Amino acid sequence: MEIPHWLEKRAFLSPNQTAIQLTDGTTISFANLRQDAVTFAGKLIGCGVKCGDRIALLSSNSYQMVVAIHAMTYINCSVVLLNTRLSGTEWQFQYDDAACTYLLYEDIYEADIKNLTVSSRDTYSLTAIEKQKETSFNIPTEMDLEQIFTILYTSGTTGFPKGVQLTYGNHFWSAVSSALNLGLHKQDRWLATLPLFHVGGLSILIRSTVYGIPVHLHTKYSKQAIHRDIMDQGITIVSVVTVMLEELLGELGEQNYPSSMRCMLLGGGPVPRPLLEKCKKKGVPVFQTYGMTETSSQIVTLSHEDALHKLGSAGKALFTAQVKIVKEGKKLEPNDIGEIMVKGPMVTRGYYKREEANKEAFQNGWLHTGDLGYLDEDGYLYVVDRRKDLIVSGGENVYPAEIESVLKELDSVKDAGVVGITDKKWGQVPVAFIVQAGSKHSQDINQLKTFCKDRLAKYKIPKKFFFVDELPRNASKKLLRRELLEWVKREED
Amino acid sequence: MEIPHWLEKRAFLSPNQTAIQLTDGTTISFANLRQDAVTFAGKLIGCGVKCGDRIALLSSNSYQMVVAIHAMTYINCSVVLLNTRLSGTEWQFQYDDAACTYLLYEDIYEADIKNLTVSSRDTYSLTAIEKQKETSFNIPTEMDLEQIFTILYTSGTTGFPKGVQLTYGNHFWSAVSSALNLGLHKQDRWLATLPLFHVGGLSILIRSTVYGIPVHLHTKYSKQAIHRDIMDQGITIVSVVTVMLEELLGELGEQNYPSSMRCMLLGGGPVPRPLLEKCKKKGVPVFQTYGMTETSSQIVTLSHEDALHKLGSAGKALFTAQVKIVKEGKKLEPNDIGEIMVKGPMVTRGYYKREEANKEAFQNGWLHTGDLGYLDEDGYLYVVDRRKDLIVSGGENVYPAEIESVLKELDSVKDAGVVGITDKKWGQVPVAFIVQAGSKHSQDINQLKTFCKDRLAKYKIPKKFFFVDELPRNASKKLLRRELLEWVKREED
Repeated sequence: MEIPHWLEKRAFLSPNQTAIQLTDGTTISFANLRQDAVTFAGKLIGCGVKCGDRIALLSSNSYQMVVAIHAMTYINCSVVLLNTRLSGTEWQFQYDDAACTYLLYEDIYEADIKNLTVSSRDTYSLTAIEKQKETSFNIPTEMDLEQIFTILYTSGTTGFPKGVQLTYGNHFWSAVSSALNLGLHKQDRWLATLPLFHVGGLSILIRSTVYGIPVHLHTKYSKQAIHRDIMDQGITIVSVVTVMLEELLGELGEQNYPSSMRCMLLGGGPVPRPLLEKCKKKGVPVFQTYGMTETSSQIVTLSHEDALHKLGSAGKALFTAQVKIVKEGKKLEPNDIGEIMVKGPMVTRGYYKREEANKEAFQNGWLHTGDLGYLDEDGYLYVVDRRKDLIVSGGENVYPAEIESVLKELDSVKDAGVVGITDKKWGQVPVAFIVQAGSKHSQDINQLKTFCKDRLAKYKIPKKFFFVDELPRNASKKLLRRELLEWVKREED
Repeated sequence: MEIPHWLEKRAFLSPNQTAIQLTDGTTISFANLRQDAVTFAGKLIGCGVKCGDRIALLSSNSYQMVVAIHAMTYINCSVVLLNTRLSGTEWQFQYDDAACTYLLYEDIYEADIKNLTVSSRDTYSLTAIEKQKETSFNIPTEMDLEQIFTILYTSGTTGFPKGVQLTYGNHFWSAVSSALNLGLHKQDRWLATLPLFHVGGLSILIRSTVYGIPVHLHTKYSKQAIHRDIMDQGITIVSVVTVMLEELLGELGEQNYPSSMRCMLLGGGPVPRPLLEKCKKKGVPVFQTYGMTETSSQIVTLSHEDALHKLGSAGKALFTAQVKIVKEGKKLEPNDIGEIMVKGPMVTRGYYKREEANKEAFQNGWLHTGDLGYLDEDGYLYVVDRRKDLIVSGGENVYPAEIESVLKELDSVKDAGVVGITDKKWGQVPVAFIVQAGSKHSQDINQLKTFCKDRLAKYKIPKKFFFVDELPRNASKKLLRRELLEWVKREED
């Protein structure tokens, strides 16, 4: 099925509306964004890029990157968005795996890409593209919703990243489904500080185009800059992850957000209860969500109202989406923990060239998320843990998130990360990494254990505590438990 | 493609939200509406109704009707919504043409349907259904967007009404596309006084379900009741036709609407400029729209802001829709008048069992509307003339050919020509020119009217009859209606 090309249409409907506002106050209208994207597309075509190509793009958030992403829709090629924090080896893997024919990069990565095995003929900095001659081409008026638009790599339990293919349709339905949940106001302004190379950031760009609302694009994460934008710039929605929300509350201090700030969309993993309670007390409108690259961002979202009596839940599946809990092929009853399965028009049709993985992941249109959770009797989803982090100790299931959440309740604990290590007797046991609040050495391990003992079954209490300055987190601030496991090894050597 | 069954999903997401509010203040929640619809479906199944059936429904706006319409979605049968203002002959035609197997009717039409040729075994009043035993059935969790949901009859130039098939997808996309244009607010309340058997009323019901907002359902049109609802009940959107808007402005007098009243969606034909100017002056937020049964309601809408400098335009095609102007197969330049063609996921796939008409009406996914108009240089649509010869009377479409065809059934009528003349109240009303057979003066106007009354809806009966010796026809004997209009002028001078 086709719909009008989304940027062509938006520039036609709302030419003078702001599409992008940068932190220095610069604004770009939809008409100008459209013109820049068409020009950029013409230059890419001049470089030999053609319909159906897969183009790798290595860039941090910038207007240039926004233009480059939209330009792809004019040529109808797919864009492989590379995570800027990865190593060269990892970039190379994705470039090769997706059989890319071009690599575009932000100029600051000039040195980093030197060692990649990519023909220099097919490698351009974004600025180099801008200097090319423009080739004229037929500007498309429509988009085929079935066409692959983005390929975003995500790691799995196997350790080999897989390319999640998302169509125009996936992105479009995601935007529509979010609007049916959050509403859509004329004066909406969505703040994007999450990287655009992750689906959480990218989806804001698409929503902006589909809704005709401005994106306040932050080129790098700064709690002060976000705080200022919310307080002074009429921001109505911000997408955040837990650690950002914690920092923003710190910035907020005794103040309150303006009432126009109507949604703090909180994704990217488990949220400690105390944080939600604090937001509730401060009147910060948190909407907890659950989603992943495979679902084009949120697929389950908890409304602000429900946050009050469903604390800790990720909410209900969006209007066009469905969620169910299964174990050994059977759908479970409320409150029984099993694997979360999802279905909906925003869900990927599959990983790029991964027949085997796709066969395992999909069943009658439902996607196995690999995550564990349950639905309560009202149908609210509780994500218990991402399956790959599951610790099995003496036959009992131990969920790291649960332990971390308990540890973070302590004022003396600023951050906590838990992983399972091999244990002769129990198979696995949990160990904890602690970032202390305030002065170091203040922490007493016995005190920690006692605190846990009061709140957790004995087998869930970390067998070891390591004190560290910071936890390893990725660009979206998600805890990297794999890294923690490396740290354990080092500590034990 | 499937999405969750819309009422099941809405009742799950917003069980306690008001779905329907009646003018006496009664409110029905989505959970209760869903329960009533499921119960009604169970009773219909008990009567023998099954998946794939086509059910004719004859009812004026009522909660019973709402329940009956939603019930169809649980059985997956198509509903043929009969216009209550039509004659028995017209109902019979639609019932037979759509090969309906059941006729459901509101109790007040008991006497009117007595003369129809429908097996009494397959004919039930809505109250009779409610008294049936409920049969349990598997409640569907999903809807197939390709499935035909409604069949609404519309006349054409040929005089034979055609059944416009609209799928769940058509209705869903229509709702989504409207939200992308008008926005979607948590506190929205949509007033429905247009008949639910027309797409303009029906679409409000679907939007309510998809958005999770209340419909204020008016069982009959009352300007006082609408005015009260807008002033006191927090109505944010009202769908109206010209004649209603004029009356509402009269009710409003020197007052102003509350600022929460954000959209007066004005469809159903031409709008006199002075009316728009009056609204502008009074700050009434009129959104002029263009649409038809074939497009599941609006497909082109003019925003309130644009109303100020594009007076008289119907606006731009909705986000998912497209419009172009053609003449003799060629796309025209701005400001050139030609036939309006439309495309989009809310456009019908075709008329029920009308191969020939479908072949003529569709071209590469584009629908020939038969209406004349132009796009200005900014892409705003101006409708110059509705479907050749169409008379729009109080928001109802009246096709001259249909009336002429009825008149010619009389032995005493040798030829007949019908045109619409301007009417202060209704916008337009039909008048007829008659060429008598045999001796002159034999014709009795009352006899003509009685004959029409048995076969045509009241609003289709010519308000005046002129007797002439001959009708103006061109060489190919085509009636020159433009000429007839000149004759009317002369007669009236």
